[in-house]
Order: sequence, then C-alpha cells, then structure tokens
Amino acid sequence: MKALILLRAGELSLKDVPLPERKPDEARIRVHLAGICRTDLELYGGYMDFSGILGHEFVGVVEEADEPRWVGKRVVGEINLPCGSCATCLAGLGRHCPNRRVLGMLEKDGVFAEYLTLPLANLHEVPSGVSDRQAVFTEPLAAAWEICEQLHILPTDRVAVFGDGKLGLLVAMVMRSLGVELTVVGCHEHKLDIVRQLGIETVFADRLDRDRRFDVVVEATGRKEGLEGSLAHLRPQGTLVLKSTLAEDYALPVTPLVVNEINITGSRCGPFEPALRSLAEGVIDPEPLISAVFPLSEGIEAFRKASENGVLKVLLELPGD
Amino acid sequence: MKALILLRAGELSLKDVPLPERKPDEARIRVHLAGICRTDLELYGGYMDFSGILGHEFVGVVEEADEPRWVGKRVVGEINLPCGSCATCLAGLGRHCPNRRVLGMLEKDGVFAEYLTLPLANLHEVPSGVSDRQAVFTEPLAAAWEICEQLHILPTDRVAVFGDGKLGLLVAMVMRSLGVELTVVGCHEHKLDIVRQLGIETVFADRLDRDRRFDVVVEATGRKEGLEGSLAHLRPQGTLVLKSTLAEDYALPVTPLVVNEINITGSRCGPFEPALRSLAEGVIDPEPLISAVFPLSEGIEAFRKASENGVLKVLLELPGD
Repeated sequence: MKALILLRAGELSLKDVPLPERKPDEARIRVHLAGICRTDLELYGGYMDFSGILGHEFVGVVEEADEPRWVGKRVVGEINLPCGSCATCLAGLGRHCPNRRVLGMLEKDGVFAEYLTLPLANLHEVPSGVSDRQAVFTEPLAAAWEICEQLHILPTDRVAVFGDGKLGLLVAMVMRSLGVELTVVGCHEHKLDIVRQLGIETVFADRLDRDRRFDVVVEATGRKEGLEGSLAHLRPQGTLVLKSTLAEDYALPVTPLVVNEINITGSRCGPFEPALRSLAEGVIDPEPLISAVFPLSEGIEAFRKASENGVLKVLLELPGD
Repeated sequence: MKALILLRAGELSLKDVPLPERKPDEARIRVHLAGICRTDLELYGGYMDFSGILGHEFVGVVEEADEPRWVGKRVVGEINLPCGSCATCLAGLGRHCPNRRVLGMLEKDGVFAEYLTLPLANLHEVPSGVSDRQAVFTEPLAAAWEICEQLHILPTDRVAVFGDGKLGLLVAMVMRSLGVELTVVGCHEHKLDIVRQLGIETVFADRLDRDRRFDVVVEATGRKEGLEGSLAHLRPQGTLVLKSTLAEDYALPVTPLVVNEINITGSRCGPFEPALRSLAEGVIDPEPLISAVFPLSEGIEAFRKASENGVLKVLLELPGD
C-alpha cells in the first residue's frame, strides 16, 4: 500500500509498504480521509523523534476484525494505545499510561496510508448522519471537549479563546454551545470570520482592551505571546486552560500565579463520544475549517500546504473503491 | 509608642513614633502578640519595596472604635484593605482589589508596634477558648484553609505537602482534618516531628520513592527544588497547589503540564472564619510551631532569630497592662 512515511526529522517520503499486520484485538481499517494536524508538522520538525507512517486523525471503514460486528463499520479511533495493566491504566487514566504507544507519534504507525490497524477498544462508530469530512475532525474536536470534562465552565462565565488556528476555532465552537459570554482573540481575518459567522464575538489580539478580564481563558496559540496575553487578561482566581504545547521554552512566572490565585489546567486528548454526538446533532459543524483536500499521492505537497501561514485544515483523501 | 520600622531594605529600627491616627471606620487595637512571617523576612530583603512598620500577624484588643460593640473585644484582622468600589471588589474579590493596601506590606503600617489601626470590616473576634498564642496564627492558618476554599479535596485523595516550614506544617494540619492519605515531605527532623506526633506520615525529600505519585501536592517550600519535586510526584491529571511564592525565578515548563493534563492552583490569603473555628474546636493547635517569644524591645534580635535555618515561628510580645 501507499503510505506517507517520516524517515527522520525533515524527511518525508511517499512509499509502497506492506499492509500492516493485524493483531487479534485489532481491526484493519481502510482509510477514507485523514487530517494533517499541527502535531504532524511538529513531528516532521523532530518532535518526539518519531519515524514511521505519520498521521492520527482519520475516518475509515473496518475491513477486517475478529469481532464480526465491527466489519463494514465506518469508524474513527482514539490515538492512545495504553498497556492496560499498569497502575495508571487501572486507575482509569489509560490516556496517560506511561507505557502507551500513540498512533502516528510513538511506536505505532499512523493513518497517512491506505490502511491502518488499531485496537477495537479504540474505535468509535460514526453515526450515519455525520459526513466523512466532519468525522475526520472527531479527534481534535474531542480534545476541545476535554476542557469541559476537566472543568465546570459556568454558562455565565466570560470565556476567551486565544488563537484562531484549527484547535482554537474548534474550542470556540464547543464553548459557543455552553451559553457563555465568548470572545475569540486572533490574528487572521479569514479565520476569525468562520466563528464570527456563528455569532461569536471576535477581536484582533492587538485591539483587545487592556483592561478586559475573563473568568476563563483558553490558550490555543501555542506561542509565548499568546500565553502572556492569556494570563494578562485573566481575572484574579480565574482559570487558564493550556490547550497547546509551546514550541518555544517559556518561563511561566510563579509569583503572579500565587498572588492572583490563578488556576491552570493542562488539557490534551479528550472523549470521542461527546464529539461524535455534537457532530451528529448538528451542534458543531467543522467543515468550514477545511482549507484543502489532496490525494494521498500528493501527500508531500499537502504537507507543504498545511505548513503555510493562514491555512487551516488540510485533508488527505484516499482513493475510494 | 514603640514600633519596629523598616526604613529601607536591610535596615530595621526600633523607634518611638506617634500613635497611629484612627479613621472613622477603623479600630485602634492594642497588640498582645505578633508573629514574624517569611514574608516579613522577604520585605526586609526588599520585596515590594515597603518601608514603614512591619508585621501583619497579630492578636490584640480593640481600645477605640466608633462602634461601641467592638471596644474591649479581643480580635485578629484580615490584612487586605480593598477599595470597596472597583469592579474586582464589587465582584466579591476584595482580597484581590487592584487598589488594595496591605497591612505591613503596602501603604499601610503593620503590627510590630504597641498599637495598630484597621477597618472594623477586617476584624474577627477571637473565641474565648482560643489563647493568644493560638490566635496569633489565625492569618497563616486562614491561608492554609484557602486551599479548601479553592479546591474540592476528596477524603480519598493521596495528598503530599512539600515543605516543613511554618506554612507547610499548618497546611498539613488542615489536610489532616480532611481524612486524606497525607504525607509531609521535608528536610528537618525536628519540624517533621511536629506533624509526625499528630499521626501524619513524614518523609525526607531525598528518601521519597521516585515512583510515588499523589493526587494533590501542595508546594510550600518556596524553592525551585520543591516545585520540581512537587511536579515530579503528581499523577497525570493531578493538582499542584502553589502555596508559596518563589524566591528565585523559575521556568515552569509548559509542555509537561499539557501532556500530563496537570492542574495548578495559586493560593494566597484565606478565610478567617474556618481558621478561628478550627482553633476554637481544637481541630488544630499551632502552638508547637512556636520557636521563641521576644519582647518588642528585642525586635531586631527576634528578626535575626526568625531568619535562622531550622527556626519556626518567632513571636513578638507586647507588654501587658
């Protein structure tokens, strides 16, 4: 099969490789659509020292599995493969298993290929009303819903999302559904437009009133300036959600956190069920985030496109049958 | 009256000064006992650029007030003097008022003197069963109770307190009352002894099992190594309470906070009511933390003593009548 392989940092290659071997607890899935995520670009840059087939956002169809009820099902899949037997797993924190493998990131080939394998325990069937172009957003949308799994955000809260990238906009869509007083702070007219059309207030970062304070700020810029701005616009005893890892090292100053009694919550992967429900029920429609769709055969060009400034989601499409 | 005055960083002086002028909403209070806090030592070192009468922990008796019901009452007092009219105050966050003055720290003379003045709104009457030597701990004990005001700590949580200083031990006494599985991590045999005698598990920082993980860690060392250790011993999705400002600058690394979905809560001043109740009901007895008591006339020597390694609370006693 064709697959987009990261040989080493900075070296991507489209290759013919054998079909992945399926273990008894796994499904073999034919990929329909796959999404390029910022993490993929970082892996390309050397993050986590990964080599292998890239990609972790996908929607596809199960072609082979020991449990017959899965065969033929359209699925999305969780990306963490926990060991299932360590103390962390037994405490119900499998997504944080210290021995976990991670799809397309850590000791497990990813989804930028015609086929992938994944444990049945990781699969979620996609409801029929959800299109492939929506379902491929399930993983990042689950990461957005994770905020609500971690925090009780009040419908009366003033919430700001810093960042108008893919994740920031998905977080904004989730926050919009909570009834909160929501502001998205960004830098790109055409990106802010997407949420402005949903009735959400948007503001350019350099035009945000200095004195404006929020109860909750979600930092989704992944940049030092975004993190500094997020902290500057939190009220005392407010909550900062760290939704992005930072490319640069950053010294989070400790004393103001204590003096202003700030709460911080780091937030990563999330639950697939609410993500799929919000897609199925039409609460959230991520399709406007799609900037371009490439065939897998043009995967390297797709990667180049995804790394351009101003581009949102780039998808890889696999040939249908 | 006699008062211990910080002239500038590093320069303390015992002086005769006029009685403080009392405003209509204030009480004039004759000090019985005052406590030297780590913050006082930091102010002495130049923190906040304060000059004036030092000190914010006290117990005393109201000698003069416009409301007669306060006169003769034994009181302790909250240290933040909010403006009462800004948006932060109106939101009920007076302790975080951006225009606040702070007793013995910021534009308000403190308590290392024969008399102080404080708004009646800041006063709390001390229940009769609570001794002066207990009541003088109300302010730092309130700061320990603040953790429970901010977080829902479960009785089944594994909680570690890092730091066996005054604040760490008070936090340990509060945590002990919550039914949690509690460990105090410290460096001083005789300090750890105080909480060990209360049945609390203690361990030397360098002997803490590397693999040990806690649901909640309270960092009360105020040192970089303590903060690093606190983070290293948190479980994924665990909560770190920052109870101390750090003397040094420290780069709190952002990426592990996101990857391990860590929660951080900065914690400062707290509610006096539960502190007084826990003293009155005998839930907490801070007296074993007293290392030495000096008359105010030996205030400079008391300060020297308080800054010695291994010393816990040093009190200043005012002459009775």
